Amino acid sequence: MKTTVSIVGGSGYGGGELLRLLLAHPRMEVKQATSRSHVGEYVYQVHPNLRKRTSLRFSDPSQLEPVDVLFLAQPHGQAQQHIEEYAQLAPKIIDLSADFRLRDAAFYEKWYGAKHAAPQWLGKFVYGLPELHRAELAAAKYVSGVGCNATAGNLALLPLVKAQLLDLSASILIEIKVGSSEAGAEGNAGSLHAERANVIRTFSAFGHRHTAEVIQEMGVTEVSLTMTAVDLVRGALATAHAKVKPGVTTKDLWKAYRAAANENPFVRVVKEQRGIYRAPDPKILAGSNYADLGFELDESNGHVVSICAIDNLMKGAAGSAVQCLNLMMGWEETLGLEFMGLHPI
Amino acid sequence: MKTTVSIVGGSGYGGGELLRLLLAHPRMEVKQATSRSHVGEYVYQVHPNLRKRTSLRFSDPSQLEPVDVLFLAQPHGQAQQHIEEYAQLAPKIIDLSADFRLRDAAFYEKWYGAKHAAPQWLGKFVYGLPELHRAELAAAKYVSGVGCNATAGNLALLPLVKAQLLDLSASILIEIKVGSSEAGAEGNAGSLHAERANVIRTFSAFGHRHTAEVIQEMGVTEVSLTMTAVDLVRGALATAHAKVKPGVTTKDLWKAYRAAANENPFVRVVKEQRGIYRAPDPKILAGSNYADLGFELDESNGHVVSICAIDNLMKGAAGSAVQCLNLMMGWEETLGLEFMGLHPI
Amino acid sequence: MKTTVSIVGGSGYGGGELLRLLLAHPRMEVKQATSRSHVGEYVYQVHPNLRKRTSLRFSDPSQLEPVDVLFLAQPHGQAQQHIEEYAQLAPKIIDLSADFRLRDAAFYEKWYGAKHAAPQWLGKFVYGLPELHRAELAAAKYVSGVGCNATAGNLALLPLVKAQLLDLSASILIEIKVGSSEAGAEGNAGSLHAERANVIRTFSAFGHRHTAEVIQEMGVTEVSLTMTAVDLVRGALATAHAKVKPGVTTKDLWKAYRAAANENPFVRVVKEQRGIYRAPDPKILAGSNYADLGFELDESNGHVVSICAIDNLMKGAAGSAVQCLNLMMGWEETLGLEFMGLHPI
Amino acid sequence: MKTTVSIVGGSGYGGGELLRLLLAHPRMEVKQATSRSHVGEYVYQVHPNLRKRTSLRFSDPSQLEPVDVLFLAQPHGQAQQHIEEYAQLAPKIIDLSADFRLRDAAFYEKWYGAKHAAPQWLGKFVYGLPELHRAELAAAKYVSGVGCNATAGNLALLPLVKAQLLDLSASILIEIKVGSSEAGAEGNAGSLHAERANVIRTFSAFGHRHTAEVIQEMGVTEVSLTMTAVDLVRGALATAHAKVKPGVTTKDLWKAYRAAANENPFVRVVKEQRGIYRAPDPKILAGSNYADLGFELDESNGHVVSICAIDNLMKGAAGSAVQCLNLMMGWEETLGLEFMGLHPI
Repeated sequence: MKTTVSIVGGSGYGGGELLRLLLAHPRMEVKQATSRSHVGEYVYQVHPNLRKRTSLRFSDPSQLEPVDVLFLAQPHGQAQQHIEEYAQLAPKIIDLSADFRLRDAAFYEKWYGAKHAAPQWLGKFVYGLPELHRAELAAAKYVSGVGCNATAGNLALLPLVKAQLLDLSASILIEIKVGSSEAGAEGNAGSLHAERANVIRTFSAFGHRHTAEVIQEMGVTEVSLTMTAVDLVRGALATAHAKVKPGVTTKDLWKAYRAAANENPFVRVVKEQRGIYRAPDPKILAGSNYADLGFELDESNGHVVSICAIDNLMKGAAGSAVQCLNLMMGWEETLGLEFMGLHPI
Repeated sequence: MKTTVSIVGGSGYGGGELLRLLLAHPRMEVKQATSRSHVGEYVYQVHPNLRKRTSLRFSDPSQLEPVDVLFLAQPHGQAQQHIEEYAQLAPKIIDLSADFRLRDAAFYEKWYGAKHAAPQWLGKFVYGLPELHRAELAAAKYVSGVGCNATAGNLALLPLVKAQLLDLSASILIEIKVGSSEAGAEGNAGSLHAERANVIRTFSAFGHRHTAEVIQEMGVTEVSLTMTAVDLVRGALATAHAKVKPGVTTKDLWKAYRAAANENPFVRVVKEQRGIYRAPDPKILAGSNYADLGFELDESNGHVVSICAIDNLMKGAAGSAVQCLNLMMGWEETLGLEFMGLHPI
Repeated sequence: MKTTVSIVGGSGYGGGELLRLLLAHPRMEVKQATSRSHVGEYVYQVHPNLRKRTSLRFSDPSQLEPVDVLFLAQPHGQAQQHIEEYAQLAPKIIDLSADFRLRDAAFYEKWYGAKHAAPQWLGKFVYGLPELHRAELAAAKYVSGVGCNATAGNLALLPLVKAQLLDLSASILIEIKVGSSEAGAEGNAGSLHAERANVIRTFSAFGHRHTAEVIQEMGVTEVSLTMTAVDLVRGALATAHAKVKPGVTTKDLWKAYRAAANENPFVRVVKEQRGIYRAPDPKILAGSNYADLGFELDESNGHVVSICAIDNLMKGAAGSAVQCLNLMMGWEETLGLEFMGLHPI
Repeated sequence: MKTTVSIVGGSGYGGGELLRLLLAHPRMEVKQATSRSHVGEYVYQVHPNLRKRTSLRFSDPSQLEPVDVLFLAQPHGQAQQHIEEYAQLAPKIIDLSADFRLRDAAFYEKWYGAKHAAPQWLGKFVYGLPELHRAELAAAKYVSGVGCNATAGNLALLPLVKAQLLDLSASILIEIKVGSSEAGAEGNAGSLHAERANVIRTFSAFGHRHTAEVIQEMGVTEVSLTMTAVDLVRGALATAHAKVKPGVTTKDLWKAYRAAANENPFVRVVKEQRGIYRAPDPKILAGSNYADLGFELDESNGHVVSICAIDNLMKGAAGSAVQCLNLMMGWEETLGLEFMGLHPI
C-alpha cells in the first residue's frame, strides 16, 4: 500500500516540481494539491507537463484531509501561521518555505525582519539538506526545505568545511548566478521576458536572506552572498571564494571532494582537463537532483574557488525535499529521483 | 536476465540520448558504445549528464561484439554500407539514420541524390514510428529511425489523415520551427552560439529531405516543408496548413484528435481556452517522449491548422527508437520513457 | 531652429523607441513625454538606455503643450477618444496605435469588435508605411502607425503585388514568428520569463487583427496570418506562402525584389548562395529600420515563399513613424534612422 | 577631406564592429579591409548588418596601401610580427590585439608564455583606454587595444583607485560574466549553440591573461579575475569585491563615482532605489560605448562591491579604439559613438 501525500500550495513552481516527483514516485500516492487561485482546475492546466499523468484538480486549502505526509509549498510566512493545524493532518511534514529553516528565533528575526509566529516549532524541525543531516532526517517528523542559493553555497563549501581545510579568519565570498525560476510563478517587476532576457544583473550585493542558512549550517561567520541574475530558467551556480589553511594542497582538496561524492549519492565532482564540460554547469542539471562540485586552488596564496551547480527547483527545493522524504521513510535515498538530466539542452 | 544492447555511433546527440534512455531502461543492459574520435574516453566525458551513472568507455567500432539488439546512430550513409556486418552481430537492429526510412530505392535516390548502397535491405525495415506501424513493429527485426521534422509533420497530419478529413486536392504546407540540436554535435557554419542565438532563420523553403517521409507515410503528394531555425536547443514545432473536406466541423476534428490520443500513449491533445499553455509547445517536452497535438479550423473556408510539438531528440529520434524496441520485445510500450518533462524550463 | 515634438504615452516600448530616435534626430527637439503611471520620474528610469542623454521627466497627459508634431503611442483605443483635443495641440499627428490604420469604419468594427469612436477621422489619416504611401505621406497632416506583423506581411508581399506576379485565386498564408517585445511593457499571462523563454508557441492560428491591414493595403482577400512566439525580444519574421501566375520565373522575382530595394532606402534583398546569413533574419536588425526581403520559388508548381524580417519596434512601429515624419517634413527619408544594426548580437 | 583608414583583419568580430563604426564615422573614409579567408567577398557577406552600406570587398593583406590611420584587428601574435611593415603604411596605428597592451617585455612573457617579437615597440604604445590615458592619447602615434574583461575590471575599480579609497592590503576579486562573442568568430569547442546556450560555466578561476592589464593599469598586485560564461552574445559584467580604507562611507563612494561620470563622457553611474534597472546591466549596452558603473558598500566591514557593465565589442574593443582615434585626431571624443543602446532587447 502506498504512502499518502498532499501538497499545500501546489500551483507555484516548487509545488509543481513536487507534484512531478511525487506522481512518479513508486511508493507515494498523491491525494490532494491545494491552490487558492486555481480551485477546481486540473493541475495539468497550471503544470502542463503533467497532462495525461494525473486527473487531479486543485482543492481549496480548507478541504485538506489527513494523510501520511504533508508537503508545504506556500509563500514564506504561511506555514508558521498554520503549523498547528497542519500538524493535526499529518504525522510527517516537509515545509519548502523559509519558515522553519533557522533554528533560532532571534536569528530569524534578524534576517527576515519580523518576529517568528511559531518560535516554539523552530526546534522541532530538521534542516532539510541530506548532505548535512542524513542521520537526523532518518528520525525526523518535521523537516524544513532549503534555500536554493543557500544550498548552492553550502554544498560548494561542504568538502572544505568537513575536511577542516578552510582558514576561517578570511572572509568567504559566494557569487551566485541564478535563472529566472527563482523569482517564482508570480515573478516581480523585472521578470517580464523582454526585461529579463539577456540580463547579467547583480540584484543583491550583500544581505540576501539565504546567507543566514550558510552561516547556520556551515558555522562560518564572515560570509557574503552576491546574487546575479542571468538568462536561464532553471539553475544556479555558486562560485565560492575562500582561503585554505597554510600548506593545504590541490591533492588535499581532491581527497575532500572525492569523499563528498562518495558519501552522497547526488554529489558529483566535475573537474576535467579536457572536453566542454570541465567544470560544474547547471545547464545539464535541469530536472536532476545532482549537485556538481568543482574547485581550483591557487597554491601560491591559498585562494580556493569552489563551485557548485544545481537545479534550483530540484536539489535547491523539491528534489532535496523528496530525498528527505525517502530518508524519513527509511527508503532508498534516490527513490524517484533517478532522472539523469539532459544533454544537450 | 537483461537484454543486451550496443550503440554504434554513441558520441553524437542521438547516440547520447539513446545512452541516457538505455542506461535507465529496466530491462536493458548496455554493453558497448562506439565512437571513432573518442575511443577509450568515458562516455560521461562527452555526455556529461551520464556522470556517476556509467563507467562505460567508448569502443572502436571494429571491436563490436554480438548482442541482442544493435542501435545504429551514425551519420547518414554509414548504416547502408555496413548493414550486412551489423546483421551478423545482432538479430534485431534499430537504425536512427536516414538510410532505411524510405521503402523505395528510386524514391531514396530522388531525395538523397545518390544511389542506395543496400537497396535489397529497404524492404526489410519497418518505419520506426509506433503511431503509424505499431502492429508491424511487434514483429519486426529491422526498424528504421524517423526524421525529426518528418515526425512533427506526420503526427500533425495523423488524426486528419486517419479520419479521412483532408481535402487532398489542396496542397499541404508544413511550417517547422526547430532548435539547434537538430544540426547535431558537429554543427555547421551557422551553429556558433554568437551566430545561432536570437535567430529566426528560414533556412529551407522547400525540398527538405524529410519531406519524403511525409509523402511516404501520409500518402499525400502535394506537401512541402518549410524549415525555420529559432533560439532553442531541443524542440520542434510543426504548424501544418491544409484543407478539410466540405462540411467537416470542429467537432469532427475533436473526435479525430481525441482518438489519436486514446490510441497512442505518447500523443496528447493540447487545446485549451485559458492558461498559458493553450496549444502545443516543445518548451515543456525536453526529455519527454510526448507528441502534443492541437488544431484550429476556420469553418468558413475549411482551412485547418494542425500543430505538433515534440522533442526532436526524443519523439523525433531516440525516444521513438526505444518505443519501437519495447514493441519489438513485447514489453510495455512506455517502458523507460516515463519522464514527464519539466515546467518551467 | 528645431521642430518641436511631444510624445503621448512615452513609457511603453513604442514610446521608448520613439524617444530614442527623436532625442538623436538632428532636426527635432523633444518637449514632453507623458505617462500616467510615471509622472515626475526621469524617462531614463523607465528607458535605461537614455541615461545621460536626457533629463526629461514624464508629464501628466493633461499638461501637454502645443508643439509642431505630436506622436501618440498609447494603448489601442485611446487616440480615437481624444483625437479632437490632440488636433488642437499640433498641426501634425502621427499615431502609433491601431486606431487610425483602417480606412473604413465597418471594417474596423469587424476586426476590432467595437464601434470606432471617431469614424469621421479615419479618412484623414494616411497609412504610415512609406514603402506603400510615400507620395501621400509628403502631403499628410495625420498619419497612422503600422501593425508590426502587418508590416512584415505587407513587405513580404510588396514586390509580388507591385509587379503583379501573384495568382490571386490562391489563398495566401503568412506565418509570422515574433519576439516578446510585441506583448508590450505590460506583457500578458505568458510573458513571465520562466514561461516565455524557450517557447515555440503558436498563439493565433487565424484572425489576428493585423490581418486587416494586409487585406486593406495589399488588396488581397484570401489571406491569413498565423502567429508563433519564439525566444527573442526584438524581431519578427514573416514567411508568406503564395502562388505566382503561370510562367512566372525566378528571374521575374529577382527583378521585382531588386526594384523594391532600389525604390526604398530601407528595403534590402537578402538571398545568398553561401555564408551564414543567406536569408532575412531579424537577429541582425535590432535597432535598425531595415526590412530584409528574400524569396524562393518552386517553378514546378508556382509556390513562392517570400520572407520579410524586421525589428518590430523599428520598421514595425517607431522607425516607420519617424520615416513618415521625415517625409511629412520634406526631409531626407533616412534622417535619424542610420543605425545599421549589430553583428553579432 | 576625410581621414583615410584601413583595417587589417576585418572579418572577425572586432574587425566587423570597427567597420560598422568607421563606415558611419563622419570624418573617416574606409579604404581597405583585409581578410585572408574572404579575399574578394563583399564585407556584407561576412558582416550582414553592413549590407546596403558599403560595396567594399575584403583585400589580401599583401595589398595594403598607405593610409592616415591603420587599425589592426588580427588574432593575438600577428601585430608584433609585422609592426615594422605596418608602421611604413600609416603614421597612426591602433592595434586591437593583446600584442602591445603591456609595457614590459618580461611581464608580457610571464602572462603570455612567449617572448615578445618586438619588445622595442612596447614603450611606443599608449594603452588605449581613454578613461585612464586621455592626455597621452591626444599625443600618441601608436595605441594598443584593451582586453574586454580587463576593461570591465579596470573601470569597476577606477573610481575607487582614483579617489584612493581602497585598502590595498586586501586582495581584490573580480568576478566577470561574459557573453559568447568573446570567443570570437572562430569560437572554440564549447561555442556550438547547443553546448553554449543556457550555460553558467566558470571556465577560468584564476590566471586569465587580462589580469595583467588590471595589474598594470590599476597598480594593484593582489587581484584575480574569475571568468564565467553566461547565455548572451554581447556583454560583460564585472563584479569587483574589495575593501575600502577604514572610515570610508557610502557618501565618499558616491563622490568618487560621480566624479568618474563627470570626467568621462562614456561613464554613467547606475544606482537606483527602484525600477527594473537599478544596477549596471550589459543587456541594454549592445552597440553602445557606455560603461555603466554601480557599487554597494557594507559599512560594517568595508566590503565594497563595484560593478561595471560594458559591451565587450564596443567599450571592450572597437568602441574604445574609435574613442582613442578621436582623441588622437583632436576630434570630439564621442564622434561616431553616439548610439544609445536599445531597450528592450
